[in-house]
Amino acid sequence: MGSAGNERLAGLAGARILITGGLGLIGSVLAERLVDVGCDVLLVDSLNENFGGNLFNIARFRDRVSVNISDIRDKHGLRFLLRGCDLIFNLAGQTSHMDSMTAPFEDLEINCLAQLSLLEVCREVNPGVRIVYASTRQVYGRPQCLPVDESHSLQPVDVNGINKIAGESYHTLYHDVYGLRTTVLRLTNTYGPHMRIKDARQIFLGIWLRRAIEGRPFEVWGGQQKRDFTYVDDAADAFIAAALSPETIGKALNVGGSEVVCLSELAQMLVDANGGGSYEQKEFPVERKKIDIGDYYTNDSAFRGLTGWKPRVDLRSGLLKSVQFYREHFARYV
Amino acid sequence: MGSAGNERLAGLAGARILITGGLGLIGSVLAERLVDVGCDVLLVDSLNENFGGNLFNIARFRDRVSVNISDIRDKHGLRFLLRGCDLIFNLAGQTSHMDSMTAPFEDLEINCLAQLSLLEVCREVNPGVRIVYASTRQVYGRPQCLPVDESHSLQPVDVNGINKIAGESYHTLYHDVYGLRTTVLRLTNTYGPHMRIKDARQIFLGIWLRRAIEGRPFEVWGGQQKRDFTYVDDAADAFIAAALSPETIGKALNVGGSEVVCLSELAQMLVDANGGGSYEQKEFPVERKKIDIGDYYTNDSAFRGLTGWKPRVDLRSGLLKSVQFYREHFARYV
Repeated sequence: MGSAGNERLAGLAGARILITGGLGLIGSVLAERLVDVGCDVLLVDSLNENFGGNLFNIARFRDRVSVNISDIRDKHGLRFLLRGCDLIFNLAGQTSHMDSMTAPFEDLEINCLAQLSLLEVCREVNPGVRIVYASTRQVYGRPQCLPVDESHSLQPVDVNGINKIAGESYHTLYHDVYGLRTTVLRLTNTYGPHMRIKDARQIFLGIWLRRAIEGRPFEVWGGQQKRDFTYVDDAADAFIAAALSPETIGKALNVGGSEVVCLSELAQMLVDANGGGSYEQKEFPVERKKIDIGDYYTNDSAFRGLTGWKPRVDLRSGLLKSVQFYREHFARYV
Repeated sequence: MGSAGNERLAGLAGARILITGGLGLIGSVLAERLVDVGCDVLLVDSLNENFGGNLFNIARFRDRVSVNISDIRDKHGLRFLLRGCDLIFNLAGQTSHMDSMTAPFEDLEINCLAQLSLLEVCREVNPGVRIVYASTRQVYGRPQCLPVDESHSLQPVDVNGINKIAGESYHTLYHDVYGLRTTVLRLTNTYGPHMRIKDARQIFLGIWLRRAIEGRPFEVWGGQQKRDFTYVDDAADAFIAAALSPETIGKALNVGGSEVVCLSELAQMLVDANGGGSYEQKEFPVERKKIDIGDYYTNDSAFRGLTGWKPRVDLRSGLLKSVQFYREHFARYV
């Protein structure tokens, strides 16, 4: 965002902002940014134990936000909560690729049905609201060419990818047909303080980091796959930049990372950030291999061009901040 | 199919075949074809009054098929019904574009949730079954170039198109990941005896034909839009050809029509087939215009190449057969 971005952000003072998935990785960082400039922020989160929500994520500013613990599948609750807000950061979702295969109906309920509910309710009780929705690189499936831009075909390799396509398509459709002011951001791997580290459900880097801090070796499946990574502060900035840029309305836009590395490089960077540790490179488990996407990294020039956003935290710094955070607050996350 | 096709069809004698949406336009024509060569055919249909099912469609061979009136949203029923069948023609769906906008959750339940249920149940109780699924040109949205082949981007313009993408993607995914032998056919406008003529829910040609037979003018919205049309016998042949061609497994393939006409030409052809009548060209109603796709016609050379299928009934003949059928059986369909 830069200083110009901060001035624009200040223009949101007093705005009533709802964040679904507000106790999660991006939601909680976004929330603090917004309350700091005087927004009236309501966080809606299910605290589903398999997802990314954690009340500790908002401990520092708990007295300055409203929190409503509820599932976005609760349509009646949504109708009350969505009324009167100016801006929705719609971040709630089932994000685990493996869980989408073992529990496909839950993924469908959250990533399709609840999204359609949210939009129908907005259309009915709050048609003027601005919405920024968190989608995922997973909609593209295995890249046919790199880096991947928005013209790449959508050929998802798991139930999560299929359902997220539906979820983002509803958002775009409700703009095109009903004039709802929606923007879709397709995120790549987002990491940093506040991520889930109990397991690999939110991001594999979570469990890597946990093991490294515990002094245990972590597993790297494959190792040569290339990926890009967005530090959570940059991801939060991207959502704010999208909300403040009317040019993004009606569009689905990629948001990428600061740099591209292969996973074995990333593993070594994490060991360095941790000041020690080790990892084992392993073959992909059979059931993971079937839904693996190979190399992926993002072309997000469209989003950068429309908003002026760019990532500001490089991977080494981001990993160091993450290690420091989890060393200090480990017990809150495991 | 030709005579070679008929010989191959005879190879299905004794096969246990389930048709979802089996009392509808394509399902019922397919069913008669299959019982005629000695298949053991079970038709599953909800007889939802807004959809295409009609018991009269199978009156001629009612004693040679089994019929189970149930909704594919009934997962427990599906588990019993799907067990032991060799081949599923999965045709049940919500097909109305307008209804998908006014009742989006019903469209989602039928075109997403129930499809995922069906595939999960197959994976569990009948993983060796062969499945051919009816998808739609609606997944493409407004054509960027014509004719539309399978490499065209998927940019649906209504909830139905979004949900059908999910429905067909689940089929392809369950092939890729679990080895289910699925084929997806993307149909264009299918018409002929057994179509719904009460209203335009299944195809606008239905209500045109009804009005023409009643001696009332029918409405043509726009008129210059180009479309292709598949006669129902050809569509049924396409499903059989797909089922008999292992080369189609794992693919999503277009199935097109015999020729391309604009809607005002079609209207005149219908008047000719009917031996009289009239129509009024009108502006698109506002809420239809938003989800209209403009010109659409199909490139189905991939499907033709893999199966040898081609349409055999031209539009004039198909319209004439349709008029004759509905003159004789009008009361059964209105």
